[in-house]
Amino acid sequence: MSYCFGVDVGGTTVKLGLFQTDGQLLEKWEIKTRTENGGEAILPDIADSICSKMKEHGLEKEQVLGIGMGIPAPVTGEGIVKNTANLGWGYKEVKRELEELTGIRVVPGNDANVAALGEMWMGGGKGCRDMIMVTLGTGVGGGVITDGECVVGSHGAGGEIGHIRVNYEETEACGCGNKGCLEQYASATGIARLARRRLVKDEEPSILRQEAVDAITAKSVFDAVKEGDKVAIQIAEEFGNYLGNALVNLAAVCDPEVVVIGGGVSKAGKILLDYIEKPFRERAFFANKETRFVLAELANDAGIYGAVKLLLS
Amino acid sequence: MSYCFGVDVGGTTVKLGLFQTDGQLLEKWEIKTRTENGGEAILPDIADSICSKMKEHGLEKEQVLGIGMGIPAPVTGEGIVKNTANLGWGYKEVKRELEELTGIRVVPGNDANVAALGEMWMGGGKGCRDMIMVTLGTGVGGGVITDGECVVGSHGAGGEIGHIRVNYEETEACGCGNKGCLEQYASATGIARLARRRLVKDEEPSILRQEAVDAITAKSVFDAVKEGDKVAIQIAEEFGNYLGNALVNLAAVCDPEVVVIGGGVSKAGKILLDYIEKPFRERAFFANKETRFVLAELANDAGIYGAVKLLLS
Repeated sequence: MSYCFGVDVGGTTVKLGLFQTDGQLLEKWEIKTRTENGGEAILPDIADSICSKMKEHGLEKEQVLGIGMGIPAPVTGEGIVKNTANLGWGYKEVKRELEELTGIRVVPGNDANVAALGEMWMGGGKGCRDMIMVTLGTGVGGGVITDGECVVGSHGAGGEIGHIRVNYEETEACGCGNKGCLEQYASATGIARLARRRLVKDEEPSILRQEAVDAITAKSVFDAVKEGDKVAIQIAEEFGNYLGNALVNLAAVCDPEVVVIGGGVSKAGKILLDYIEKPFRERAFFANKETRFVLAELANDAGIYGAVKLLLS
Repeated sequence: MSYCFGVDVGGTTVKLGLFQTDGQLLEKWEIKTRTENGGEAILPDIADSICSKMKEHGLEKEQVLGIGMGIPAPVTGEGIVKNTANLGWGYKEVKRELEELTGIRVVPGNDANVAALGEMWMGGGKGCRDMIMVTLGTGVGGGVITDGECVVGSHGAGGEIGHIRVNYEETEACGCGNKGCLEQYASATGIARLARRRLVKDEEPSILRQEAVDAITAKSVFDAVKEGDKVAIQIAEEFGNYLGNALVNLAAVCDPEVVVIGGGVSKAGKILLDYIEKPFRERAFFANKETRFVLAELANDAGIYGAVKLLLS
């Protein structure tokens, strides 16, 4: 039996998994991401952790096929990161450095793309080769998979679904500097923003008014939706329109079999899909009408699974 | 030396090319597309034409690597067409049938995707592996290439750029049944429609008023733009905004190195690119700002070149 490691580098923790090459997860654990001093300790920490784990299991280098890796930044085909928002790294030859530290083959990729691969391999998109993954967290991330492979793009910046522009009338700026990005309406913070905007518009009674306006979260909105709260339903519809319309356009170009919705917001469950699917079905190009919508299944493990899939493909 | 054939099936004519496998086009010719009786003669006609050409050049089957083929319909990975708008075919196992008729390997694909491959191989996108091709003709077609391969999609309907929705206020329907598709503003007929709408809005003088409103074409609009006609420039700006904005969103997802603009409308030349690039540069996600815009170079030969590229890749 051969083994491999899946590594998911986040701004706070690095998640690691020891896998058999048939995809069975044997053990998973976490280490802290030490971002100080330009993140210089991150790769050595990962190398140490992997080497200890190999020793613990009595694994020789020859038994380890490689290390797959998800990184929160664009990653070039050569395994190079040009810059990161929250690891401290500037230019970093991730593949070369970690290979030198471990003596094991390393295949790094963008974390959102890698998570999408994980969901395709072992999660909500299992068995599909054409898939769009949308991660609704603090921001909106995504990964587009066509014929089994991630759309990486010429700068490693493919799949930036959150920065599709969906509203040309927007006056507030997105974190990226543009206005009207999907992320401003469909992320956890975006849904909270829609809620605040809706609540100040009039005095219509709503469960949401029991909270301070600034305390309202995506979770409180969908909890209120489940109670049948009219105002919350309007907010969910607005969210669903923006995301559903963006997916109509994406589907026209990518023709996916399935759309997988993940991230913290997706904990709202199946009801979330209803609000996205309705506008999608109404407006999709005829060839895409049958696209399935499912919830992500791997939660925080999508990254380590996908890292292994990236390595193996 | 090995040889291969590139075949581009259109609603009126079938274009054929005899190539060396290094991409050199040795000879090209056309035959009529006989669409009567469910298009039953189309594949036999192609087979006959290829066999005659082989005889003419004294080529044996062993010297012919295969036949690549572009078809104006979605084509599945198995080389099956489910339906066509203008060939007369319903369900047709194109690959199997033409292989049986010729005894030569056949690789069919969608014609717009195939033309994009041609431009990447030998035309405006030469040397690139991440490319978006937009064909501005009677309709708006397209092909998206990521890491050297076409986005085919789960139903063979990938790359339908013309049916990205760019205007949620539109009241007239597109040919596909939806409202506000890019095709309604950026195709030759779409540009003529924008011109008609603009001209009835007020009485501002314009060269375009010398023609009957129904006789105005995309060509007359861009000819007037070149004369500095203010009204025509406004129409070109509106066209460019719709197409540029659609490409901003596509680029966020596909991160292309180059956008290739082809089709009849692109005969307007470099000035056309200016109207598309300006809104693109203003609004693109930061990672995509440097995307290059070029005109297609292969004109009507893109299909036969791309068919060969599809076969060889």
